[in-house]
Amino acid sequence: MKLRIDEAEYRGRIERVRSQLEERGADCLVLFGAKRIAWLSGYHLLATERPVALILERNKIAVLVPRLELEAAEDQPLIDEVYHYFEYPGGEPPLKLLAGLLKGAKCIADSDGYPGLWGYQGPPLSAVVGAPVEVEPQLIDELWQVKSPAEISLIRESARWGALAHRLLQEHIQVGMSESELGLLASYEASRELLASYPDYGGHSRGGLPAQAGLISGPRTALPHAMSWNRKIQPGDLLITGTAADIWGYTSELERTLIVGEPTAEQRRYFSIMLQAQQLGIERSGPGVPLAEIDRAVHDFLVKQGMEEFLRHHTGHHLGFMPHEPPFIDRDSSGEMRPGQVFSIEPGIYIPGHGGYRHSDTILISEEGVEILTDYPRDLESLIV
Amino acid sequence: MKLRIDEAEYRGRIERVRSQLEERGADCLVLFGAKRIAWLSGYHLLATERPVALILERNKIAVLVPRLELEAAEDQPLIDEVYHYFEYPGGEPPLKLLAGLLKGAKCIADSDGYPGLWGYQGPPLSAVVGAPVEVEPQLIDELWQVKSPAEISLIRESARWGALAHRLLQEHIQVGMSESELGLLASYEASRELLASYPDYGGHSRGGLPAQAGLISGPRTALPHAMSWNRKIQPGDLLITGTAADIWGYTSELERTLIVGEPTAEQRRYFSIMLQAQQLGIERSGPGVPLAEIDRAVHDFLVKQGMEEFLRHHTGHHLGFMPHEPPFIDRDSSGEMRPGQVFSIEPGIYIPGHGGYRHSDTILISEEGVEILTDYPRDLESLIV
Repeated sequence: MKLRIDEAEYRGRIERVRSQLEERGADCLVLFGAKRIAWLSGYHLLATERPVALILERNKIAVLVPRLELEAAEDQPLIDEVYHYFEYPGGEPPLKLLAGLLKGAKCIADSDGYPGLWGYQGPPLSAVVGAPVEVEPQLIDELWQVKSPAEISLIRESARWGALAHRLLQEHIQVGMSESELGLLASYEASRELLASYPDYGGHSRGGLPAQAGLISGPRTALPHAMSWNRKIQPGDLLITGTAADIWGYTSELERTLIVGEPTAEQRRYFSIMLQAQQLGIERSGPGVPLAEIDRAVHDFLVKQGMEEFLRHHTGHHLGFMPHEPPFIDRDSSGEMRPGQVFSIEPGIYIPGHGGYRHSDTILISEEGVEILTDYPRDLESLIV
Repeated sequence: MKLRIDEAEYRGRIERVRSQLEERGADCLVLFGAKRIAWLSGYHLLATERPVALILERNKIAVLVPRLELEAAEDQPLIDEVYHYFEYPGGEPPLKLLAGLLKGAKCIADSDGYPGLWGYQGPPLSAVVGAPVEVEPQLIDELWQVKSPAEISLIRESARWGALAHRLLQEHIQVGMSESELGLLASYEASRELLASYPDYGGHSRGGLPAQAGLISGPRTALPHAMSWNRKIQPGDLLITGTAADIWGYTSELERTLIVGEPTAEQRRYFSIMLQAQQLGIERSGPGVPLAEIDRAVHDFLVKQGMEEFLRHHTGHHLGFMPHEPPFIDRDSSGEMRPGQVFSIEPGIYIPGHGGYRHSDTILISEEGVEILTDYPRDLESLIV
């Protein structure tokens, strides 16, 4: 399998953005966000305190980079011109150079200046160009909301490796092992297999794990976003896991609730309600279905089961290029599901002092309906360790 | 060793910020940045599209969080009041709730609204409060620029584990192994030892590696921020490594240039020039020394050696809580080194088509002088593999 987005696809993205600029009567688009630059041009870079900007005009793409990015930027097939400054801080603020390159053109930007990463301080773009700047990150981010066949194949591959990481994680779980130790071991083993399968894996990150696995355990599972501790697994524990894999910048989400040893009647009951809610969320999903309707159905079901006080969040979110992307499966979302969209379905219930229950699967909306990309058992018997 | 910042230290930080607010005649400080919130209050949270804000007033600390953070926020000993909204998106923009909590008080903020993470879209804070907001991230970030004894002990510990990770990495390097495979193996082994040594390790991240190791190899070492590929190590390669460890949110930096097999005369020459430049940077550092003077001395030395065309960046940067922090050791920086500061010293030379040479060490500035925290050989003979 080809683990990347090809040049033709980047050219297609660029043309779509250009036609939007034309519709809006704008001369150019300025991007400061490294993920947006990577998505549009295939130029993956490490964002630091040194400002970087991509300028998309009607007939060329230029970037402004610090000296240490110059050769990497020049090597990008889709970038026509590369301007650089030596270092940050330096004499002239890099955004003044940028203003000079824009020459008064009417530009839309993804933010009003370079973000304050790692202590960067600089003027807003509007201050250096001396005019208000139309800030519209959505111009790119909305294009993330429907995935192309090539993107879907990368997300599918991510889900496949996430499932492998989860198999390894579940195999290793034992009373007395710690959360961090288990996550590390499964991440290592799955990443090693991924690298062995794809000798040309890489190219888009520094130091990140190719495949990732983690879990939280015990009563702290009642906190949906609990930070990982190094707690040791105990008999009777609830576990909430999470695994994924980074495939050329694309990702997926697989989470499971596991129970250590024979479940109690209470655990069985909560597990069953959570599983029914997730199943309902998956069954209700499909092309043309309003997002709010799905979340409303799941919410109403959980309330009817007496779970209202244990609800902490909505049903799911779009994802694939970012870990979360709009739109959200939320009672207050507008819009409907569209073919090519990729969502997590993950309603949860969280009982203070007892623990939490949540599965998350990554689903693909197609013309025909719904496909679950994360192939991993969801039933209780398969998840008792 | 105690792997955390204690409550008394957080209280001290809070008092320092309060006295700054008082000096400026401000009633409160609003923080949206998760790292700043963690630094000030000890509340480590996962930043997502759901806005979070901390409000520091003269006599209390409040936070506004989504429902899924409520219990975690209430559990924070230094936070007095917790307000919450159910979910994002929701009916009312969370920043409108925030404006209600501020009740027209005169506040400084670290940004004019919550940053656009993972597709969040919302109004600027100035729009919801109906008045300009003084935006001053430096009010916190400047306090990061001198580390306390407790912080220094965490950074020291990070450097110790970074050195262990580097030893493991160097032991494993062999012709035919790939960059990613080597980084993964050393990261795994060092992290496993770190977890075994500190059973209570954790508490501040999700899914990150406790210890990290990576490298780039061959001609691509000429790109200072090359992304990691899965290239296989070859005889005669130059390698540039990097290792670190995350100790309760604190970090360090250790990088080495290694040579695979007997170095050529050209490699020996470049290595020697790089090492002399780094040694000069370390020797010139110390309390009271202007930052610009150090970078100027290193730069002048390298130019005199005929390296001008191979220079890509300045001598180093402050670090410890973030991977890079101001101030920078740069010819255009103002200010001088102060006791309690922690810097990387890492001048590099990068020869297109041949490769790059850079060591990075983490040094501590004390009243007496300079201490190198990253205890790892720097001489060529120790770095031939």
